[in-house]
Amino acid sequence: MKKQEILPFGLELVNRSEIALLGTINEDGFPASRAMLKMENQELKKIWMSTNNSSGKIEQLRKNPNASLYFVEEPKYIGLLLLGTVEILLDSQSRQRFWRDGFEMYYPKGINDPDYAVLCFTAQKGILYYDLSIQTFDL
Amino acid sequence: MKKQEILPFGLELVNRSEIALLGTINEDGFPASRAMLKMENQELKKIWMSTNNSSGKIEQLRKNPNASLYFVEEPKYIGLLLLGTVEILLDSQSRQRFWRDGFEMYYPKGINDPDYAVLCFTAQKGILYYDLSIQTFDL
Repeated sequence: MKKQEILPFGLELVNRSEIALLGTINEDGFPASRAMLKMENQELKKIWMSTNNSSGKIEQLRKNPNASLYFVEEPKYIGLLLLGTVEILLDSQSRQRFWRDGFEMYYPKGINDPDYAVLCFTAQKGILYYDLSIQTFDL
Repeated sequence: MKKQEILPFGLELVNRSEIALLGTINEDGFPASRAMLKMENQELKKIWMSTNNSSGKIEQLRKNPNASLYFVEEPKYIGLLLLGTVEILLDSQSRQRFWRDGFEMYYPKGINDPDYAVLCFTAQKGILYYDLSIQTFDL
């Protein structure tokens, strides 16, 4: 793939993905992953998700904000790995902006539930896996 | 899920998965992920894959063998995260045992291609994500 095609190609993959795999480093120094609902993205630079403030990943991110988001599509395993850091947002504006119908299932006390947190991932670097080739780029 | 149901449930998920997401820690201290073909498994304890010996993940694993394998199934996002370490196998017996038809696409020089490596992941701990609950177990 030509250099100028990488960013638009990666962005299309992110835009059509509902799910991202969030990678963190746990307290024992092991890489951990879990599927997360991708909520919004600003190009490939920023991606927002929500999670329980009491969850293990939040604890891991408070200790070490280094993270990755991996987007992958079967059957060809076209993959985009974004490397960056995660900020944990608990302010009212972020809560309001990312609240969705049905979130009461996860945060029973509603929009001000102290267990409701927004994650903002900021990418620094991207790696595109495509057709047996791997291309790395800065963000 | 009852404690005695976790291991069989996790094993069924691994047995029917063709793909595992291998998590490593890269040279800059960021968690990295990529989809890998799961080749064989011995219960939940050992899982074998193959890769190019020249790949970035091998370099990462040589520096830091701590790794994870994540198995996930849509639409309910039932997920199993295994945490452990990876050993890189280059001996003839392992090459022979895990060689598959079509591998020439990845390793053009065949079974003795110096770029053909087998990865053996050994799990120490498991985390099952199921129906909004998270259950941790030792392996």
